[in-house]
Order: sequence, then structure tokens, then C-alpha cells
Amino acid sequence: MNFGSIFLSEALGTGMLVLLGVGVVANVLLAKSKGFDGGWLLINFGWGIGVFAGVYVAYKTGGHLNPAYTIGVLASGADEYTAGVSITVATTLAYLLGQLVGAFVGANLAYAAYKRHFDAETDAEKKLGVFATGPAIRNVPWNFATEVIATFALVIVLLAMGHTASGLGPLAAALLVVGIGASLGGPTGYAINPARDLGPRLAHALLPVNKGAAQPARATVGGTTEPQADPGPTDQPGRKNSDWGYAWVPIVGPLVGGVLAGLAAQVLF
Amino acid sequence: MNFGSIFLSEALGTGMLVLLGVGVVANVLLAKSKGFDGGWLLINFGWGIGVFAGVYVAYKTGGHLNPAYTIGVLASGADEYTAGVSITVATTLAYLLGQLVGAFVGANLAYAAYKRHFDAETDAEKKLGVFATGPAIRNVPWNFATEVIATFALVIVLLAMGHTASGLGPLAAALLVVGIGASLGGPTGYAINPARDLGPRLAHALLPVNKGAAQPARATVGGTTEPQADPGPTDQPGRKNSDWGYAWVPIVGPLVGGVLAGLAAQVLF
Amino acid sequence: MNFGSIFLSEALGTGMLVLLGVGVVANVLLAKSKGFDGGWLLINFGWGIGVFAGVYVAYKTGGHLNPAYTIGVLASGADEYTAGVSITVATTLAYLLGQLVGAFVGANLAYAAYKRHFDAETDAEKKLGVFATGPAIRNVPWNFATEVIATFALVIVLLAMGHTASGLGPLAAALLVVGIGASLGGPTGYAINPARDLGPRLAHALLPVNKGAAQPARATVGGTTEPQADPGPTDQPGRKNSDWGYAWVPIVGPLVGGVLAGLAAQVLF
Amino acid sequence: MNFGSIFLSEALGTGMLVLLGVGVVANVLLAKSKGFDGGWLLINFGWGIGVFAGVYVAYKTGGHLNPAYTIGVLASGADEYTAGVSITVATTLAYLLGQLVGAFVGANLAYAAYKRHFDAETDAEKKLGVFATGPAIRNVPWNFATEVIATFALVIVLLAMGHTASGLGPLAAALLVVGIGASLGGPTGYAINPARDLGPRLAHALLPVNKGAAQPARATVGGTTEPQADPGPTDQPGRKNSDWGYAWVPIVGPLVGGVLAGLAAQVLF
Repeated sequence: MNFGSIFLSEALGTGMLVLLGVGVVANVLLAKSKGFDGGWLLINFGWGIGVFAGVYVAYKTGGHLNPAYTIGVLASGADEYTAGVSITVATTLAYLLGQLVGAFVGANLAYAAYKRHFDAETDAEKKLGVFATGPAIRNVPWNFATEVIATFALVIVLLAMGHTASGLGPLAAALLVVGIGASLGGPTGYAINPARDLGPRLAHALLPVNKGAAQPARATVGGTTEPQADPGPTDQPGRKNSDWGYAWVPIVGPLVGGVLAGLAAQVLF
Repeated sequence: MNFGSIFLSEALGTGMLVLLGVGVVANVLLAKSKGFDGGWLLINFGWGIGVFAGVYVAYKTGGHLNPAYTIGVLASGADEYTAGVSITVATTLAYLLGQLVGAFVGANLAYAAYKRHFDAETDAEKKLGVFATGPAIRNVPWNFATEVIATFALVIVLLAMGHTASGLGPLAAALLVVGIGASLGGPTGYAINPARDLGPRLAHALLPVNKGAAQPARATVGGTTEPQADPGPTDQPGRKNSDWGYAWVPIVGPLVGGVLAGLAAQVLF
Repeated sequence: MNFGSIFLSEALGTGMLVLLGVGVVANVLLAKSKGFDGGWLLINFGWGIGVFAGVYVAYKTGGHLNPAYTIGVLASGADEYTAGVSITVATTLAYLLGQLVGAFVGANLAYAAYKRHFDAETDAEKKLGVFATGPAIRNVPWNFATEVIATFALVIVLLAMGHTASGLGPLAAALLVVGIGASLGGPTGYAINPARDLGPRLAHALLPVNKGAAQPARATVGGTTEPQADPGPTDQPGRKNSDWGYAWVPIVGPLVGGVLAGLAAQVLF
Repeated sequence: MNFGSIFLSEALGTGMLVLLGVGVVANVLLAKSKGFDGGWLLINFGWGIGVFAGVYVAYKTGGHLNPAYTIGVLASGADEYTAGVSITVATTLAYLLGQLVGAFVGANLAYAAYKRHFDAETDAEKKLGVFATGPAIRNVPWNFATEVIATFALVIVLLAMGHTASGLGPLAAALLVVGIGASLGGPTGYAINPARDLGPRLAHALLPVNKGAAQPARATVGGTTEPQADPGPTDQPGRKNSDWGYAWVPIVGPLVGGVLAGLAAQVLF
């Protein structure tokens, strides 16, 4: 396959993943939504079936949808990315760029689907939380460790699936993502995919997400809101609204986890 | 297959879908029901397994159950609707009419199954909500956009499934519907299927749903109930009880989404 | 297969079904249990996976586990109950008796697994509710109708599955039962299986379920508890503790639904 | 396969199982976690998909992951543990040791993933509950019976699966574990696997889980906290923090259940 075909397939698949993934978080977090406060398992199913749907529409490229998996396949010493797609600099870039662009577009579509709910929501942190992951307890080394562990688990199981014939197709990856989220998503919101976090974060930065909406009181100077264990991204001087200071963690953490899984798979499988 | 066989198969399948789909909403919304307040994921599973069950009983016609999918297949340039059913005006009408009639009958059966719970429920809006979809925040352009986006996602993934061999059978469509509902159902209640909305809405208009039940206080003139962000269908002059003013959105929106998905599939797959 | 083999296989399968099904209701209803108040979807999954597990262990007889299904197969004009088991009076009785005895034994095992939670529970109605189904709003004609409709849906889809090749095995029946429960279980608790209700109800009548536990105050004479829409089984004179007055509904309703589904399948499939 | 390969494969698989299983309990129980109070079904899915993921990475040894299953296979009179692995003292020990060591390592990884949440949690009993199972109502004979019954159900269905061809692969075992947990996990937290309990309990004993965190008030002398039905492990003199007095129940109970299932399978299947 040529660069454009790979790019388009992965963009389509990752766009579908992020449309459903960002969508389910919007449904659970945003004011007046019918799935408001629907629980963590609902979020896990939304992301899991996002993978399910995304792998189907990206069937031509094997539905990677995730730079950590693409890099993990590379590190595992595989012969090709999927049947008929050899591993070169060009194909690798096509995968990665398609994933990032698709994630950005998918986040825009999810924003459009929930447009009036974003308008009705007054909590800027919730709105950021719909797009990008963030730590429950901000601690960079441990947040990083969590993303490495969770992505290692994701990628090594995906690589093991290539050695078995289960007949489950995209369902296997979908259920795995449901489980990783249920089990290891508690501390950081399980990016486990650099494109899933960076694409929507860019969309958050560029879209008029907070335009016209009241800012939360605690973002003002001299606010009297009660202290929190984890200061949010908006109330520290110099930290941007889209919390770019944290953005490298859900990029580098998953990539490290994916590479470690690829190397481990070389030895183990 | 002849007109009657197609009509019957699709009516049976869509009837099963709507029986289970309307049933789960009744279970979650209506007074004294055992699944009362059971959450959004429960509703998603009810509709998803409604698709699962409906596709099985409509196996002779490929289990479309949804005009947006039928039209999407048409727009995709496919050769036939399912193995052995060519695409003609007659077969198309048989699919669409079967779906609409089946949805109407299924809603009547769900009403019968929950008859005493409808009688015990005093909130007319909840009773309408069991049958027909409605917006969380009423805004026609954005509600329309949400239905287009959600149905596009549904139909393009269904069309992509035709290019893969997963062995999941009707489970694939069922899980997809669980996910679309979880992720994109927040703003409008995910009709994503004109028959699913129109058939039950007709049933609501014709059945004695509110007979003998007290009307909600806010429907009276000069009521003192607190204002809501989204005025419901019963408290604006001239709007009918079955909210026909909104009914075109869950018909036209899904059809547009289905056509767009069919055209996109021609290019992409 | 001979009478004994069929009896044993169906008893094993239905015992597994009822162990897991009665177990999940105990988990959600009984005091101090870890799954206490776990929600309707949890109950649906417990029963659904009960079917899943039961069909596996009863693989020799096709895993009917349900007299309504056995009678539905009979009414459908099938040639045999499962590969190698012809339809005779003897095999039919072996299926039905195995199912009833298995359900009784399974309920006893579930009682043993939750023994100390039954002892700690003071609400006799809850304890009955763990074993047997009961209506949310007691109205015999409509409760009967609900059981007929729900069982018709169950059996006709199961019969349709025989005409397709999905590769899902027992998972298809399991998911169907999850969905029937989610969607149509609200009014009566979805017996949809005479053995599932009668076997555990017999166990409830014979086991020392309420021994040593305080009876609910409202069962006493001259109690001051507030009135309920549906008087429970213990506070009407002459009604037995195991609510035998209602017991025929979850027996006859499902059998009627199963026969209707079998006849419909003859015409439709 | 030689001892080392079996050991490594089972350690990898059981490590994955326990990472996801202990992880989901941490997510639901520990302070500030995103899945806090996410419900029993969420816990069931976490453990179920833990099995799913673990079976994939341990595909070389058939993914036992559980001494009760390994011993159950032995008791069933099978010819080999999995294709190409004969049943000997050496292979048996490799399975059992791999499972125990893997469970220990997996619990350490889950601790690392939730490190800051353990630090932020002040309730020592919750922290123990993340690692090891414990009874809802402490009563050794009945707790033991519950573990025997639940493990018997697990292992006999797994053995029955070997007699059918469902095409579900690891999904079948995963769903079964979801169901056993939903239905029979209420009284003891469903160890149903000696390694799953002992490995994490050892990790709890060796890790600085409670270091630096405030101890719960009721652990102090002369505390005024209200009495509980089931006194926790820390407030009785002489009982260790890791509740070693109970530890034999989730070891011996599952082993007995597994052996009984193996013997029953010899007769039944």
C-alpha cells in the first residue's frame, strides 16, 4: 500500500475510535447529557467499542489506531505491519500521521455531536477532561509509570493474539481495552495511545470550547474555593488551559510501554 | 424473494428490535419497574441485544431493521441487499415498509408487556420518552447534526464489516449499537434509525398511553413548576403530545447519515 | 441417548443455570453481600452467564435447560431435540424432569453458598425474591401476558439461531437472556422458564430459609408500616410464604409463549 | 515443553491476570481513583478480562493461570495439560510455581500502577482488600463451602468446554469468570484460585503498603469506632495485618472444588 492509502485508513479508524471515545466521556461528564454520571464501566465500553468500530473501518491496514502499537510491532521484529504492508520509514510515518490526524478530526466530530452540551457546561476542567487524559493525583513519575505499565499490558497481549486463532476478530482488542481501562485506568485515565491524547488535546486548544461559558470560580485570582489534593490545570500560573505541561506523559509513557512490549514479545513468543 | 417475504422478515426483525428496545427504556424509566433507574449502559445493552435478536429472526433478508442502513447500502452501490435479494424499487419498499410496520407492532407489544407500569406512571413526558427519542437540549440544527454523525458512524462500520470475516455474526452489529448509544446517544437519545423512532411514536399517538393518568402539573396553564433548560413537548402551545414537531429530525437525520456513509464507503472501501 | 443420560445432562445444566442465577440475585439483594445493590444489569449478566455455563455442561443434550424451549422445539415440528436425540414421550419427560430436579438442586447449592447472608437477612420477601420471581405490580392477566411475550421472544430467536451459523455457540443464548432480562424483566422478574421458577420455589418452601430470622414488621397483626401498591406475599391471609398463588403464572405463561413461538417458527422459518 | 518454559508462560499469564484483577479492585476501592465506587460488575469485568488477557499471553501452556484448574485437569484423568505438555510431577510443579510467582509479580505491578492512591488511602482494610480476598461475614465453614462451590462451578464448566468447539477461545473462560464473580462472589470475594489470593497476599505482606499512611482509628487501643458485624483483620489481637489466619480458606477451598470438578468430569463427560 502507498503512503496515502495507509494514512487514510488509519485516519479513518482512529477518527472512529476517538469519535466514540471522546463521545462517551462527553456523555458521562457534560451537563444535561442523557448518560450523565453513567459510571466508569460505561466509559470503558465506549472506548472499547470505539476500538472495535475503528478496527473494522481500518481493516486495510490492520487497524493499528495507536502509535504505541505500531512502534511495538516495529520493536517486536515483525516482518510487516499487516498483510502486504512492509515496515519502512514511509509506512511507519503514514501510520503515525494518519493516527494523529484521525484523532484530531474525530475529536472535532465528537465536539460537534455534543456542541450544545459543551455550551451548557460551566466547568472548564470537565471540558478538558472530555478531550485529554489527566492524572487523578498529579505525580509525574508515578503517572508515567502507570501509562508504561498499562500500555505494556495492552501491546503484549495484542502481540500474543497474533500467535493464536480465536475467531474473535476486532472483538478481542475491544475487550482488552475495556479491561485495561477498568483495571488500570484509575490513576491517569488510560491514554495508552499517544494519538488518542494528543489529537483531542490539539482540538481542545483550537476549538472555542470555553467561549461564552463562565469560567470556574477557582480560576480567578483570590478565589475562595476549597483546596484540592490535585490542583487542576487552570489554577497554576503559567499552565495552559489545555494542560500542555502534562501532555508529554501520555505520549512518551505509552511509547515506552509499547517498545518494552515489543522487545519482550521477541523473547517470549 | 418476493415483496411479501421481505416485508415479513424485516417486520419480524424490526418488531423484535423495538420490543426489546422500547422495553428496556420502559424498564428504566417507568414507576415501580424492577430495572428502574438502571442506568445508561443498561439501556445501551437493551437496544444492542434488540439488534442482536432482530437480526437472527430476520436472517432471510440480512436483518437490515433500519431504513438508514437500507438506504446506505443502496447509496454504496452494492449489487444486492443481501444474498439473493436484488435492489429494485419493490424490494426497497418492502424493506422500508416492513421496518416501519414492525417497529409499530413491536412498540405495541412492549406497551402490553409494561401495561400496568404505564398505568401507574404519572409523568407524561417519561411515557413519551419510552416510545420516541427526544433531545436533551432542544436545538434542531445541532440535534440534527448529532443524528447525522451517529448514523454515519453506524452505517459506515456496518458496511466495513461486509469486507471482513470476523465470525461474530449478529454480535458485531449488536456491540456497535451498544457503543454508538454509549458514546453518541447523550444529546438526542440515538434514534439512528427512522423506523425505530416513527413506529413507536405512531404507537404512542394511537395507544391510550395517558388515559386515566394524571397529567404533569407543568402542562397546566399558569403552573408554578420551576423552569427547565429544555421545555418539554407538552408545555408549548400547539405542540402535540407525541411531539410531532421534532419527529422529522430522527427520520431525516439518520437517512442523511446513512446516505453519506454509503457514498463514503464507495470511495473508501 | 437413554432417559437417564438425558435427565442427568439437563439436570446438570439447569442446576448450573440456577446456581448462578439464584446466586446473583442473592448477591444483589441480601444483607452484607459484596454485590449488594449492584443493579439490574448485574442481575442480567448473572442469569445470562448462568445460561452460558449451563449450556456447556449440558452439551450432550443441546443444553435446553428450559421446559418452554423444549416444548417450543416440539411445537416447531423439529425432527429431534438435538443431534441424536429423537422426540418421544420418554425423551420429553427426561428433559422436563431433569430441568426441574436440576433447578431444585441448583437453588439448594446457591442457598449453601449464601447461607450466612440468608441468616443475616431479616426481610422475608427479599429472601423469597432470591428464589422465585414475583410481580412488581401484581395483576395476574398482565403478569401472565408479560411472561408470554418475553418467552415468545426468547424461544423464537433461539429457534431462528438454528437456521444460521454464527460461531458464537452458547454465547448467543447467553446474550439473548441478558437482553430479555434487561428489556422485558421489569414487570415480573422474567421467569421465562418454568423450571427456573418452580425448582427454586420448592427449595424455598423446603429449606429453613426464615428459621431464626426476624419476620418483617409488616407481617405482624396490626402493623403500622405504610401501605404498598403491591401487597407482598406474606401479608395477606391464606397466602403461603412461598407465594404459591402466583406460582402458576411463571409456569403456564412461559409454556404458552414457547408453544406460540414454536408454531410461529413453523410458518416463518 | 521444559520446566522453565512452562514456568515462564504461566507466570506471564497469571501475572497479567493479577495485574488487571488487583488493578480493578484498586480502581474501585482506593481514594481518588477515577473508577472509585464503580460497582461490582466493573470488578467482575476487570477480573474476567484479566483471565482473557492472561490466557492469550500464556497460550503456549493453554493458559491455566489457576492451580485449582491445573489440579482439576489432573483429577479428570486427562492425558496432558495442553497440547504437547504431558502430566508429570515436573510439569505440574512448573504450572503451580509459575502461577504463584506470576501472581506475586502481577500484584507488585498493580501496586506500582496505583502507588499514589495507596499512599493517599488511610483505610488499611481497604488496602488489604485490594490484594487478598476476605469474607463479608466471617464464618470459616461456610466461607470454605462458598469457595468450594464456586470453584467447582468454574472448573467443571472449563472442563466441559474442552468437549465443545465454540470458536470463542479465551472469551469463554473470561465470561465464565465474570459470571462466577457476579453470582457467587458475594460472600467471600471469589478467590476460586489459590495463586490469585496467595500471591497478592504475600505482596501485601512484603510491600510498604501502610507505610506513612495513617492507620484507621479503630486499630488503636481503646478506639470508639462503632462495632461491625464482621471484625476486620486488624482489630483482633494476634491477627496479622495480612490476615494470614484466613489465608488457607482461599487456597484449600478452591483446590477441593477443583478436584471434585475433575472427578465429576470423569463420570459425567
